[in-house]
Amino acid sequence: MLDASRRWRREGRSIGLVPTMGALHAGHLSLVGAARRENDVVVASAFVNPIQFGPGEDFERYPRDLDRDAALFAEADVDAIYHPSTEVMYPSGASTRVHVSGVSEPLEGTARPGHFEGVATVVTKLFTAVEPDRAYFGQKDAQQVAVVKRLVRDLDLGVNIRVVPTVRERDGLALSSRNVYLNPDERRAAVALSAGLRAAAAAYTAGERGPEKLRARLLSRLGAEPLAQVEYAEIVDPETFRAPGSLAVLAVRFGKTRLIDNHELTRPFPE
Amino acid sequence: MLDASRRWRREGRSIGLVPTMGALHAGHLSLVGAARRENDVVVASAFVNPIQFGPGEDFERYPRDLDRDAALFAEADVDAIYHPSTEVMYPSGASTRVHVSGVSEPLEGTARPGHFEGVATVVTKLFTAVEPDRAYFGQKDAQQVAVVKRLVRDLDLGVNIRVVPTVRERDGLALSSRNVYLNPDERRAAVALSAGLRAAAAAYTAGERGPEKLRARLLSRLGAEPLAQVEYAEIVDPETFRAPGSLAVLAVRFGKTRLIDNHELTRPFPE
Repeated sequence: MLDASRRWRREGRSIGLVPTMGALHAGHLSLVGAARRENDVVVASAFVNPIQFGPGEDFERYPRDLDRDAALFAEADVDAIYHPSTEVMYPSGASTRVHVSGVSEPLEGTARPGHFEGVATVVTKLFTAVEPDRAYFGQKDAQQVAVVKRLVRDLDLGVNIRVVPTVRERDGLALSSRNVYLNPDERRAAVALSAGLRAAAAAYTAGERGPEKLRARLLSRLGAEPLAQVEYAEIVDPETFRAPGSLAVLAVRFGKTRLIDNHELTRPFPE
Repeated sequence: MLDASRRWRREGRSIGLVPTMGALHAGHLSLVGAARRENDVVVASAFVNPIQFGPGEDFERYPRDLDRDAALFAEADVDAIYHPSTEVMYPSGASTRVHVSGVSEPLEGTARPGHFEGVATVVTKLFTAVEPDRAYFGQKDAQQVAVVKRLVRDLDLGVNIRVVPTVRERDGLALSSRNVYLNPDERRAAVALSAGLRAAAAAYTAGERGPEKLRARLLSRLGAEPLAQVEYAEIVDPETFRAPGSLAVLAVRFGKTRLIDNHELTRPFPE
């Protein structure tokens, strides 16, 4: 991978990287589209990173279908797919981890200990293997974006982090590779996340600034949804992920499936 | 720095990096010589890295003389000196650390908690800023070499780590920027480190393989030296820094000054 990247660089071609765990949906393809518009070469990675999953999480059952992913990447005009094996990424004896403290600690960091250390480590490795000019991440994983931005600044990785808006289903549900886990009842219930974000954004637009009032709006639909178990619902600063702020973030369980979503309340919620 | 490096790379020129904390001696210049022979462009860094010093260590009094260092680098035909400020390397809010477990834990890792995390973090940053083809480290800091090799493999840093033999005074004392701290009595006593390594190597050459016997030879002179306080004296594996092995490693205090030295017993000790 690095040989190919350095050849492209020698030829003066700019490189955009779209890191994914495969299981592609239209959100990933929107990242590829942004990369295609801004770079000469587009590399997409597909790697289900074991070290960002905790014990009891869904590493084993995470959906994998490289043939389907490769066809979708090809259709989206990706130039190269980086698909390392686990043995290549974490050979026997590998013992290095990249840890971002601060922003990686609250919310997702608390709910998923070790998750962001796994993310920071694999993102560093993807960046050193691909040496991209730009890398594309979805706003859907807002805290991951903040961790990666901090990481890139702190380790001088020289990669421009581009953040692409969340792609949603018609009813508002944010696209996620984990949505396939939902049964029909859970799928119907899951609209409560985006409904809460929409309600909080509407209240903000109408002038509401009280954190508890906004939080109550965020939880309005979720509280009435028997299938939803709210893990957190907060309004935080988008760099530190601590209150106060104007980024509404949600993590909710439906049965065994855990979904997250977020919205910056200073902006109108998309129709 | 990265702009300059990427320009050199576009021109097809290979880049060798010599990371230093300044306070140059002939050991550093030997690294520069090796880099000069093997690369089109030689970059030397001079940065006293605060995060690899523990509380109570010599960060404040570590010798600094950039004018002298710059003159010595120029004389040795270095093309560029990378001399970042602490604020550039660790700006307010920086919170990322690179941690290598395993090899970084025994010996120096135990004696200097956090030291190798500081080393791994700054080396990663130097490599991402310079993007060298090769980087040059002294055998004198043998455990640092093992940590950096592990780091480079684990994070796919794509840098060839070159290890250069220790340069010694005529009486055997390994060159170190910390030797200037020694008073004349301590300087005379400090020869006990290399004398121990020489005695252990002679015993090994004569067929001795018993770890305790070899260790006794290592300590023969040090035990008779009232100014020397031995911190550790072990014979370890050069990749894991755990026994058994054939790399003799020493850490010894003379007053407030802490010196380290090592020798691979399968090789004759230099005259």
